[in-house]
Amino acid sequence: MDLGDEKMIKIAIDANGGDFGVNTTVPAAQDAIKAFKDIEITLFGDENKIKPLLKNSERITIVHTDKTIDMGEHDPVRAIRNGKDTSLVMAMKACKDGLCDCMVTNGPTQCVVIGAHLIIKKLESMSRVALCPVIPSLDGRGRLMLDVGANVELKPEHLRELAIYATVLAKEAQGFENPRVGLLNIGVEEGKGRSVDKETYDLLKDCKEIEFYGNVETKDVLSTPCEILLTDGFTGNMVMKAIEGTAKTSGAMLKEEIKKGFFSKIGYLFARKAFKRYKSRLSGDEVGGAMICGINNTVVKAHGASDPYAYFHAIRVARNCCKNEVIKKVVEKLPKEALQNE
Amino acid sequence: MDLGDEKMIKIAIDANGGDFGVNTTVPAAQDAIKAFKDIEITLFGDENKIKPLLKNSERITIVHTDKTIDMGEHDPVRAIRNGKDTSLVMAMKACKDGLCDCMVTNGPTQCVVIGAHLIIKKLESMSRVALCPVIPSLDGRGRLMLDVGANVELKPEHLRELAIYATVLAKEAQGFENPRVGLLNIGVEEGKGRSVDKETYDLLKDCKEIEFYGNVETKDVLSTPCEILLTDGFTGNMVMKAIEGTAKTSGAMLKEEIKKGFFSKIGYLFARKAFKRYKSRLSGDEVGGAMICGINNTVVKAHGASDPYAYFHAIRVARNCCKNEVIKKVVEKLPKEALQNE
Repeated sequence: MDLGDEKMIKIAIDANGGDFGVNTTVPAAQDAIKAFKDIEITLFGDENKIKPLLKNSERITIVHTDKTIDMGEHDPVRAIRNGKDTSLVMAMKACKDGLCDCMVTNGPTQCVVIGAHLIIKKLESMSRVALCPVIPSLDGRGRLMLDVGANVELKPEHLRELAIYATVLAKEAQGFENPRVGLLNIGVEEGKGRSVDKETYDLLKDCKEIEFYGNVETKDVLSTPCEILLTDGFTGNMVMKAIEGTAKTSGAMLKEEIKKGFFSKIGYLFARKAFKRYKSRLSGDEVGGAMICGINNTVVKAHGASDPYAYFHAIRVARNCCKNEVIKKVVEKLPKEALQNE
Repeated sequence: MDLGDEKMIKIAIDANGGDFGVNTTVPAAQDAIKAFKDIEITLFGDENKIKPLLKNSERITIVHTDKTIDMGEHDPVRAIRNGKDTSLVMAMKACKDGLCDCMVTNGPTQCVVIGAHLIIKKLESMSRVALCPVIPSLDGRGRLMLDVGANVELKPEHLRELAIYATVLAKEAQGFENPRVGLLNIGVEEGKGRSVDKETYDLLKDCKEIEFYGNVETKDVLSTPCEILLTDGFTGNMVMKAIEGTAKTSGAMLKEEIKKGFFSKIGYLFARKAFKRYKSRLSGDEVGGAMICGINNTVVKAHGASDPYAYFHAIRVARNCCKNEVIKKVVEKLPKEALQNE
C-alpha cells in the first residue's frame, strides 16, 4: 500500500449507472477505499440513495444528481448531448476538468464510448479510440482483447497503435511482465487472412515497442499464452460475444442434461461448488472491466450487471492505470501527432 | 425408404481420408447401405485394408488406391495437382465424370475446397464457392453457417447468392420447413456493422427467394431461431472456431474444478451420463458435416476426426442432397450467369 507524501488518486464514479445503480457502486467504492490508501472517490449519484448505504464517508465525496442514462438507450450521441445532469456525463466532465484523475462506470457501452469521445476527447497521438475488455482465460490471469466494437473497421496503422497502447496497459494495469501481442486470424501461419490482416502482421513484426507473438486462431482464444489479442472492432465484437454466448448456452445445455436424470441431479448436488467456481472463472468478474483506450483520461467500463465484487476490480484497474501513468507512457511511445488522413 | 423404379444414388467415398481412414469410412458406409435402400457406394481406398472390414459388399464397389492426402498438408493446390492417384482426387474425378452423383470426404478442409474448385468446378450461376458446416444448437436441430473460410472477403451480392443456396440446402438436405436467414452482425438493429453488412442487409431484405430474419448477434448463435447464419468467410471462421474453443476450454475448466474436490469427484460419477450427453450435443456429430456450396456436384466434408457415427450422418446429408436435387433447385433460383466482375 502507498502512503505518505504520494499524490492521492481521485476516482470519479458514475454511481447511478448500471443495472443495479448505487447497490453495486456504493459498496464497491467502500471496499476500494478500504483496500487502497492512495485513492479518493467522488460518487456522482443520488444522495438520498447513497447516504443510507454509506457506512463510512472517509475519502468519499458525493456530488448529487438523480439523473442517469438508461441502460437501453439507443441514441448515444443525443443521450450524451442532452444528458449534462446525468451521473455518467458529470463524472466524465469532472475528469475533463481535472477535478478527478480517472473514472469508472457500468453504464451503457456505446454511451460510454461516445461520451469519452465528446467530453474527454481523443489523445492527440492516437488515431482511434478502442474498447479493450479483459476476457477470461484458462490460466485465470485474463487476456486483453481489443478492439471489440468502438470501430467496425481499422487500418493496419491503427492496429499498431492499439498494440502499443495495450502493451503498456497489460504491463502497468494488469501486471503482465512481458505481454505478447497475438493477431486474431483464421490460421497461425504468416500470410493468412484478409489484406488488412496481412499488412497488420507485417507492421507488428517490425514494431519495436511490442512483443509480437504472431497469429492466433479463435479456437485458442481462452488458452493462448498471448496476453493481448488484437483485431478490428467488428471481428472483436463477434468473437467476444461468441465466447459469451457459447459459455452461457453450453451451461444451459449441461443443466438440461443434468435435470434429465435422478442420479445426475444427485451428482450435481455433490459437485455444486465446483460448478460455482467454474461459473465464476468464466464470468470475468475478477479481471476488472473494459478500458476505453485512446482518450485523455482513464475510463474503465464495468459490466452493466456487475456486482460490487466485479465493480471493485474495475476501480482497482482504474487506480492502477493512474498510479502507473499508463496514458503518459503510451504517449511517450507514440509519434506526437495521430496518423494523417485518419 | 425409397425402393422400386427410382434411380439409385451413387455416392463416392474418400475411404483413405481423415484421421482414422478406413476404420471410420468403411463401417459408416456399411451403416448407410443398411439405412438407405436407394444408394450405391464406391469406396476409393486401400483394398487390402477395406476388405477385412467389409462384412457385406452389397451395393458397395471398391476402387483401389493406397494413396491419400496428408491431414497436415499445407500446399493444397500442389497436393491436388500432384495427387491424381489419391483417394480424395479419385473420388472427385468420379463425380466430375458422372460415374458418381456425390461424394463424402473427411480429408483436410482446404484441400477439399481447392479440389472442388479445380476438379469438380464452380457452378456457372454461382460467383463463389463457400463452406457451410452445420453447427450445434440449443434445440438440437443444428444451424447452417456460411461461409466459414472458403472466401476471406465476400461482396453483398455473393452473400445473397449464398443465402439462396443455403435456403434450398436447409429445406432439402436438413428438412427445415421455412428456414430463416440471419445475418451475423454486431447488433440486431438495421444499420449496424461495416458497410458490407449494411448493404447485405438491404439486399437480403428485398430478396424474394429467402426468408430474411434480420441481424443476429454471435452471443445468440447457438440459441437463435434462425436456421441459417450468413457471414463472410473470415468472420465465419473466427466465430465458428471461437465457439469450438470456448466449448472445449470451458469443458477443461469444469473438469479442473471438479477434480479439486472429493465430493465433486463423487458428484461427477453420478452425473457422468449427463456430461456425456452434453458433450455429444456440442460435438455436432449428428448434424452431418460441412457442405461445399457452389460447385457442380454435392460434396460433404465430415470432420477429420469423425467416428463412423458422424461419418454416417455426412453420407446421409449427401444422399438427401442428391435425392432432393439441391443443386438443380439452386440453379433454378439463380440468374443464369454468375455476377459479372466477380
